[in-house]
Amino acid sequence: MASQNSFRIEYDTFGELKVPNDKYYGAQTVRSTMNFKIGGVTERMPTPVIKAFGILKRAAAEVNQDYGLDPKIANAIMKAADDHFPLVVWQTGSGTQTNTNINEVISNRAIEMLGGELGSKIPVHPNDHVNKSQSSNDTFPTAMHIAAAIEVHEVLLPGLQKLHDALDIIKTGHTHTQDAVPLTLGQEFSGYVQQIKYAVTRIKAAMPRIYELAAGGTAVGTGLNTRIGFAEKVAAKVAALTGLPFVTAPNKFEALAAHDALVELSGAMNTTACSLMKIANDIRFLGSGPRSGLGELILPENEPGSSIMPGKVNPTQCEAMTMVAAQVMGNHVAVTVGGSNGHFELNVFKPMMIKNVLHSARLLGDASVSFTENCVVGIQANTERIKKLMNESLMLVTALNPHIGYDKAAKIAKTAHKNGSTLKETAIELGYLTAEQFDEWVKPKDMLGPK
Amino acid sequence: MASQNSFRIEYDTFGELKVPNDKYYGAQTVRSTMNFKIGGVTERMPTPVIKAFGILKRAAAEVNQDYGLDPKIANAIMKAADDHFPLVVWQTGSGTQTNTNINEVISNRAIEMLGGELGSKIPVHPNDHVNKSQSSNDTFPTAMHIAAAIEVHEVLLPGLQKLHDALDIIKTGHTHTQDAVPLTLGQEFSGYVQQIKYAVTRIKAAMPRIYELAAGGTAVGTGLNTRIGFAEKVAAKVAALTGLPFVTAPNKFEALAAHDALVELSGAMNTTACSLMKIANDIRFLGSGPRSGLGELILPENEPGSSIMPGKVNPTQCEAMTMVAAQVMGNHVAVTVGGSNGHFELNVFKPMMIKNVLHSARLLGDASVSFTENCVVGIQANTERIKKLMNESLMLVTALNPHIGYDKAAKIAKTAHKNGSTLKETAIELGYLTAEQFDEWVKPKDMLGPK
Amino acid sequence: MASQNSFRIEYDTFGELKVPNDKYYGAQTVRSTMNFKIGGVTERMPTPVIKAFGILKRAAAEVNQDYGLDPKIANAIMKAADDHFPLVVWQTGSGTQTNTNINEVISNRAIEMLGGELGSKIPVHPNDHVNKSQSSNDTFPTAMHIAAAIEVHEVLLPGLQKLHDALDIIKTGHTHTQDAVPLTLGQEFSGYVQQIKYAVTRIKAAMPRIYELAAGGTAVGTGLNTRIGFAEKVAAKVAALTGLPFVTAPNKFEALAAHDALVELSGAMNTTACSLMKIANDIRFLGSGPRSGLGELILPENEPGSSIMPGKVNPTQCEAMTMVAAQVMGNHVAVTVGGSNGHFELNVFKPMMIKNVLHSARLLGDASVSFTENCVVGIQANTERIKKLMNESLMLVTALNPHIGYDKAAKIAKTAHKNGSTLKETAIELGYLTAEQFDEWVKPKDMLGPK
Amino acid sequence: MASQNSFRIEYDTFGELKVPNDKYYGAQTVRSTMNFKIGGVTERMPTPVIKAFGILKRAAAEVNQDYGLDPKIANAIMKAADDHFPLVVWQTGSGTQTNTNINEVISNRAIEMLGGELGSKIPVHPNDHVNKSQSSNDTFPTAMHIAAAIEVHEVLLPGLQKLHDALDIIKTGHTHTQDAVPLTLGQEFSGYVQQIKYAVTRIKAAMPRIYELAAGGTAVGTGLNTRIGFAEKVAAKVAALTGLPFVTAPNKFEALAAHDALVELSGAMNTTACSLMKIANDIRFLGSGPRSGLGELILPENEPGSSIMPGKVNPTQCEAMTMVAAQVMGNHVAVTVGGSNGHFELNVFKPMMIKNVLHSARLLGDASVSFTENCVVGIQANTERIKKLMNESLMLVTALNPHIGYDKAAKIAKTAHKNGSTLKETAIELGYLTAEQFDEWVKPKDMLGPK
Repeated sequence: MASQNSFRIEYDTFGELKVPNDKYYGAQTVRSTMNFKIGGVTERMPTPVIKAFGILKRAAAEVNQDYGLDPKIANAIMKAADDHFPLVVWQTGSGTQTNTNINEVISNRAIEMLGGELGSKIPVHPNDHVNKSQSSNDTFPTAMHIAAAIEVHEVLLPGLQKLHDALDIIKTGHTHTQDAVPLTLGQEFSGYVQQIKYAVTRIKAAMPRIYELAAGGTAVGTGLNTRIGFAEKVAAKVAALTGLPFVTAPNKFEALAAHDALVELSGAMNTTACSLMKIANDIRFLGSGPRSGLGELILPENEPGSSIMPGKVNPTQCEAMTMVAAQVMGNHVAVTVGGSNGHFELNVFKPMMIKNVLHSARLLGDASVSFTENCVVGIQANTERIKKLMNESLMLVTALNPHIGYDKAAKIAKTAHKNGSTLKETAIELGYLTAEQFDEWVKPKDMLGPK
Repeated sequence: MASQNSFRIEYDTFGELKVPNDKYYGAQTVRSTMNFKIGGVTERMPTPVIKAFGILKRAAAEVNQDYGLDPKIANAIMKAADDHFPLVVWQTGSGTQTNTNINEVISNRAIEMLGGELGSKIPVHPNDHVNKSQSSNDTFPTAMHIAAAIEVHEVLLPGLQKLHDALDIIKTGHTHTQDAVPLTLGQEFSGYVQQIKYAVTRIKAAMPRIYELAAGGTAVGTGLNTRIGFAEKVAAKVAALTGLPFVTAPNKFEALAAHDALVELSGAMNTTACSLMKIANDIRFLGSGPRSGLGELILPENEPGSSIMPGKVNPTQCEAMTMVAAQVMGNHVAVTVGGSNGHFELNVFKPMMIKNVLHSARLLGDASVSFTENCVVGIQANTERIKKLMNESLMLVTALNPHIGYDKAAKIAKTAHKNGSTLKETAIELGYLTAEQFDEWVKPKDMLGPK
Repeated sequence: MASQNSFRIEYDTFGELKVPNDKYYGAQTVRSTMNFKIGGVTERMPTPVIKAFGILKRAAAEVNQDYGLDPKIANAIMKAADDHFPLVVWQTGSGTQTNTNINEVISNRAIEMLGGELGSKIPVHPNDHVNKSQSSNDTFPTAMHIAAAIEVHEVLLPGLQKLHDALDIIKTGHTHTQDAVPLTLGQEFSGYVQQIKYAVTRIKAAMPRIYELAAGGTAVGTGLNTRIGFAEKVAAKVAALTGLPFVTAPNKFEALAAHDALVELSGAMNTTACSLMKIANDIRFLGSGPRSGLGELILPENEPGSSIMPGKVNPTQCEAMTMVAAQVMGNHVAVTVGGSNGHFELNVFKPMMIKNVLHSARLLGDASVSFTENCVVGIQANTERIKKLMNESLMLVTALNPHIGYDKAAKIAKTAHKNGSTLKETAIELGYLTAEQFDEWVKPKDMLGPK
Repeated sequence: MASQNSFRIEYDTFGELKVPNDKYYGAQTVRSTMNFKIGGVTERMPTPVIKAFGILKRAAAEVNQDYGLDPKIANAIMKAADDHFPLVVWQTGSGTQTNTNINEVISNRAIEMLGGELGSKIPVHPNDHVNKSQSSNDTFPTAMHIAAAIEVHEVLLPGLQKLHDALDIIKTGHTHTQDAVPLTLGQEFSGYVQQIKYAVTRIKAAMPRIYELAAGGTAVGTGLNTRIGFAEKVAAKVAALTGLPFVTAPNKFEALAAHDALVELSGAMNTTACSLMKIANDIRFLGSGPRSGLGELILPENEPGSSIMPGKVNPTQCEAMTMVAAQVMGNHVAVTVGGSNGHFELNVFKPMMIKNVLHSARLLGDASVSFTENCVVGIQANTERIKKLMNESLMLVTALNPHIGYDKAAKIAKTAHKNGSTLKETAIELGYLTAEQFDEWVKPKDMLGPK
């Protein structure tokens, strides 16, 4: 490719434009950068979307070849589809400009490989060849689903599974070492394990609708300008390329006009965010201290906690996790607002929706790994303190309900609290039972389950 | 029961209180009404929660009888559980006061049936007997799940199914009558049908976690003060009483401390709200007019539309539906915030969460029925106008892509738009094709699918 | 008015309908109840909206009289406007049916007072007289603003002020009694006082846009069918009737088509909800215990806290407050979604928006009063425990930074934590300072502010 | 600075770490990159936060010099503060690691300028000198407010003002050219102008709380380890450096523990998002067509609109704007969730909150400029079509209300609609008025305001 700082002239249906010589993209991409100066480089189209487009364009070219596309051109497109680059989110709501950019890049890269001139559109035209049998309206949602599915499988689910397994180890371990408390740490952590297990279940339950691809619906869902069988074949190719069970969407009108599948997946991640917020909050509070908090857990010390308070250690992984959870809840509302505002044959909040879905998937997956590696695996029970708190607890009086009734048990607890005395001495003093009865009826070990 | 305006004295562990003689509830209920003057009667605990408690208390008494509860008392409780009444939402976050009220009502009603004195707690004590083997912490979430499941099955799913079927009829009907347009109304409505079909799928997919009941976990999930098997038996009784596949939750710690299942169900309803917002918006815009809008659909005229503009007819059912959708999205955020803020062994946003879940289920179900009966079934296609718009459309040029390429086709469309001419005359004038070719290649009928 | 169970025949422009004889409303109201069976009685139009309509209709009649409306009719309307009744929220999004119902009720009540026949529309016609110079499109938003303003002034602001004052008393009191801790309770509570003070500031800052009334804009904002000056005079009357500084909206197109003012007010309440969530959460955690929590505050005991754990006392007011906060956040999203979806000359999410705004105002106001009366005023500091925690705190080492540097201070804290020793003995042992220096430099009393 | 690919050894209170030689940051920054692998480079701390820290650190050093900090060191810090670099958002919720990174960078840069050895902490220690009188707990919120204020003033408000002025020009222009319609385009656009005007008002109303700086509160708000007057002086320096009216926060406890001010600002931007969503939606629909839509406006053609439909032009700027609006609504929920979850003396959602606030400010500001330049200024009225639609409108019948009453007027409109006839011929046919009366009473020109 040519050197930097020089330009070539390319044209689109609106006229000519200068394109940097060291870029594969073309006139319409340049035009978009001129028209949408919103947010800068941090707002570029997420990389997973570009990668998904690469997969799709490759699959489409392969299928088009079956339908008569010149094998030389098809082959060049397939190779060029490996190239990709950053684009901008805040553009047309159908993602047309991103699809166009992809077409331009692949076209120019293919032209280059075939010895042609960049920007000449000969012999590989961005619309007539690269976009053959396609429309932004079906390719962009297809890329959305491919990107979301890959991110879920490569980042989100493995992250959650890792966290699940780490919590499960703590649960198992503690069941034996902490068996003297009315609620063991193992029991408490078993609830977290269950939450993460269900998070995985929920996300997987949303995937069947994500595996449905819009490709083959073209402009409005009818499949105009494609051949019969194109949709099914493209989905099969994408499935083969990714190893994920993609299929063609049973109804292309729904697949273009609504993005309920992404709202659904975002909802599953929103529920997961609630689970993780709860777990991280619990661990933060159980680890609060070291001397003035609950202090039941000892969290690993990862870094200096304060720039002014020397020696302070903070539950920073819990904080990162709860911030991620809040972000996912916010992203979900953005996805919901976008998903509810589609009109007629096309929802035009596509780039914003996929950006937020991918953001949530990545953050939840990464944060689960970070939280596991830098916090969960290093958690220790503060056995001494847990025992002390348990033995002082007035809640042990509950064990007396079946023997002396709720009202008398309440009187014992309230009196003990008022006088700062123990349950046992108060119970005897009130004449409700003997010391022997108390010892027999109130055994923390026996309070861990039904009889 | 005694006459109004007189009081009896009842007591709780805090002391004595005057209770209206014509009410079954007792001291703690009166205390709650004194402490939580928030929002007034419209904010009372939703009726489905009270009904669910009736089912649960009946089931628990039956199971307790198996474990030795005096059959006479158990029987009285079972009968009394049919009585119910309004309570208040903004109270303790565990719903303890509602559980207590239920206990008091059932206790007093049972006492009355057994010839005892109201408020005497003899022979049926609200805590020792009615609440036997139970805690607010497991009964309230159990009632939440029962209420949500019943509302989903009795209101939400039937409502959506009704809407689905009505849309499906329109879809089928129109496929034949509108076959001349590039997109038939039947095709457009088939997208809506698919959305509603998936809405039903999504809601059903969330139900397995709703069918899990917390009952038997008592205070913190351990099942303290219950007998082995109690949890499973209560779930079985509830299943028998409701005809829904309830089971005992596999992990009671999760069932008390988190309400992810409700966040999940709320998320499914949030996705459904997006679908309905889209559909109602489309129908509103397609029916806009009568003379200055799109006017492709003729909506039924249900009522005078304006208090100042005589003869105006408005898409009021669409408006009600979109308002409902917005409300469900808001409710979902409230549920999410509540669901993410549980701490340790107990989430204390229970009454708020179930209120919003039930609100969403009821609104979506009712609105689907209202929208179906008062709008969908009466929709008519404005055939004449649809044909006119279709024939004028510049979009028909797309059919030329495979024959003359995207760039030439674009030139035709842009020139026709600029000159206000037809595609055909422009295409010929530009010398891109003959009249015969145009007629052969541009056939709206052939543009409805792949070739 | 006639007896129940009998009907009269009324008509609207769609035809005849049976109206219950004991109701003032007419045909269109009956028609609405037939077309919008959504949610039932709990979903009725909020009472403050009906009251606001009463104020508006009275004001409009008075102004219309100035413009020639028969004084006898105007007078009857003014009297009848005192009558009001419940209506339904999920209807047309412009609130047309509620305006119509108000017109019908006032018309029939006025007819009755003038000796006419109910439903005859003679001599007081619901549209021609009661609705004179008005449209649903300007009356409903006017009533929205009147209702919101009254609720804010009568419930929300007084509630917040009460809470502010109660917190302020605690702040002042504690500054003196708790002066030995690095952060006094008084300082901590001063933050809460500031939050509530700013909450009041924020809500007041949103009111100028609420005081702007749409009345006089009629159907689309032009003021068609009114007289010059009508808008200003109606606003002046409403201001006189309510004692609030209402003015006519400077731009009626904005006032009908957008409800940004309600989104803004809802946003101010959303911020207030964040403040209250934080305060209630803090007090809940500071009051946790009695023996295994932080226990720095002793919260008032209001009611038995558990149906299974005798003697348990819970921070129920904090729970109600945080549930209210979550609800307000959810309501805010519903208002936001509604507010963003207006089209052209009319936003048609009006009933839903005002319902949520009024709900939030009422809940926040009521909950502030309940929280104040049943929790804040009874809070006591657990002086003994606070002192103990303070003296054990490793954070006191921070006072050494300016004397020995951050790195050495950190070493002291980390060593003391590891060895379970005191800061003083560790500091001396490490040879960083003498006992005298420690005592001089580490004085909790001196750590409460800059030097 | 040394060459790439080589490392130096630095230490923090946790031990030694390798730091790249070409970076100014130190051990704790490296440690953070190891512990928080969440989201990658796109998730780095927003640049405006880093810039704000530069301003703050410079101001603090200057004030510290007044209090005795070695002028040579102070001067070096002041110079070094111009350097800045990207950091990571998902870290400790107090932003401690970012503050530490800033301290490290400034320390090393200052050491370098003074001829010392990078990482030696001599003669400029990151904590003892650069962080003097500061804590992450007060510097990070200070930087948040500085960054938010600058972004609002430099991007958001100018963007909105630009849009306001462009809309205002259209409004003025159209009032004269479109005066024949019942609602002129000028009137319609005057509503948009009012919305943007109020958006500016709302955002400005939130700024006084943003101008309050936490600096001087140090760890928990007491100002420990600062001197009296430090807080006021730092705020004054920051005000001088930025030209914005910053002051020291009247209550530092609130300033550290709550971020209500950011929730409030986010709320003002949320309301602005609703306004912009409405305006962009209106313009999108008014410009729909060219032949099958409303077509009242002609939007500028900026780029090819479709990759499959040649010649298609889309309202892409409206789509970008509505996507931005949805994102801002989502960001607002994230900010709300974070803002409501602060505990005790410190809210630990700081990085997430400021990220979202800055994101919203930038997107709204940029999108307003893009929308203005690429859409609003090029909008043209489709005069011919507007006239046609207006003359066909049945709504003109409203002008007859004061003359023949609502019921008769309704009959005319309904009959005309049913028969497809004009209002005039129908009115005459029904015998309600003469042709002369119709012409006198129904004059669109007279329907634009009150009489």
